[in-house]
Amino acid sequence: MFQADSRFMQAAMVEAQKAYLIGEVPIGAVVVHNGAIVGRGHNLREHLNDGTAHAEILAIEEACQALHSWRLIDCSLYVTIEPCLMCAGAIINSRIDNVCFGSRDPKAGATKSLYAVLEDSRLNHQVNVVEGLLGNEASQIMKDFFKAARKKRKNRAGNS
Amino acid sequence: MFQADSRFMQAAMVEAQKAYLIGEVPIGAVVVHNGAIVGRGHNLREHLNDGTAHAEILAIEEACQALHSWRLIDCSLYVTIEPCLMCAGAIINSRIDNVCFGSRDPKAGATKSLYAVLEDSRLNHQVNVVEGLLGNEASQIMKDFFKAARKKRKNRAGNS
Repeated sequence: MFQADSRFMQAAMVEAQKAYLIGEVPIGAVVVHNGAIVGRGHNLREHLNDGTAHAEILAIEEACQALHSWRLIDCSLYVTIEPCLMCAGAIINSRIDNVCFGSRDPKAGATKSLYAVLEDSRLNHQVNVVEGLLGNEASQIMKDFFKAARKKRKNRAGNS
Repeated sequence: MFQADSRFMQAAMVEAQKAYLIGEVPIGAVVVHNGAIVGRGHNLREHLNDGTAHAEILAIEEACQALHSWRLIDCSLYVTIEPCLMCAGAIINSRIDNVCFGSRDPKAGATKSLYAVLEDSRLNHQVNVVEGLLGNEASQIMKDFFKAARKKRKNRAGNS
């Protein structure tokens, strides 16, 4: 049974804060192997001009390099917001065993909200999913980000 | 209405052949914008040690850099085999308008076989999907690849 560890979700929150500080949608992720973080990532879609540069993808890519394998055996991924289809698919393709996410994404979440692809027995790999760890914090930083973005847009419209 | 162009699927097949020649599962993809190829990719999972290094992801990343944007507006993606969940999600996240794939993947295909995520009206982007262009060729190179891989395994077992 997968026991999620809040220290690793805290590390994912630190990644989310890095994204927040540079104006990216604040989502962070870490990949854990044998009790140690082997991959970290935060959303860099705007900075890298790359629609695939989500936190989970970057954390997975770093973990693959650290472990010299595309199979992330015995690994767990912690992410502040429920993974989208792309990231859930990457988790399956990388053979990650466990996923812990903070807060649901009702518009694009693919592990509980719109789909439950990580638990689909038709696919060649299934993943244990735990949700809610530091969910309030994960959700709050998203709300703060979008509130600030709306305010900025409003001010810009007012000045033009 | 999206009119798929076999020249671009032919270019995706060339990518698949590149993968075949280096021992990777032979899948290839190209991204097309204004009648020109702006991104190419073939599966490099083993060579890059990266579970996210599918043909479509690499082609999308190259197209994003070529167009200096994560939004691949007015772009079409051609891929030899039906996209998996990860790649279908990346297509949605990149706002690609049209996808043409050659042959279905009954075990992992996420655009027709197991899921139809590109046409899901709950998501914030929908994609036109065309299938079957050069489907026999796309399917044949996969069969050849797995047949050769089985033979190699059998020979190895016989020699040990």
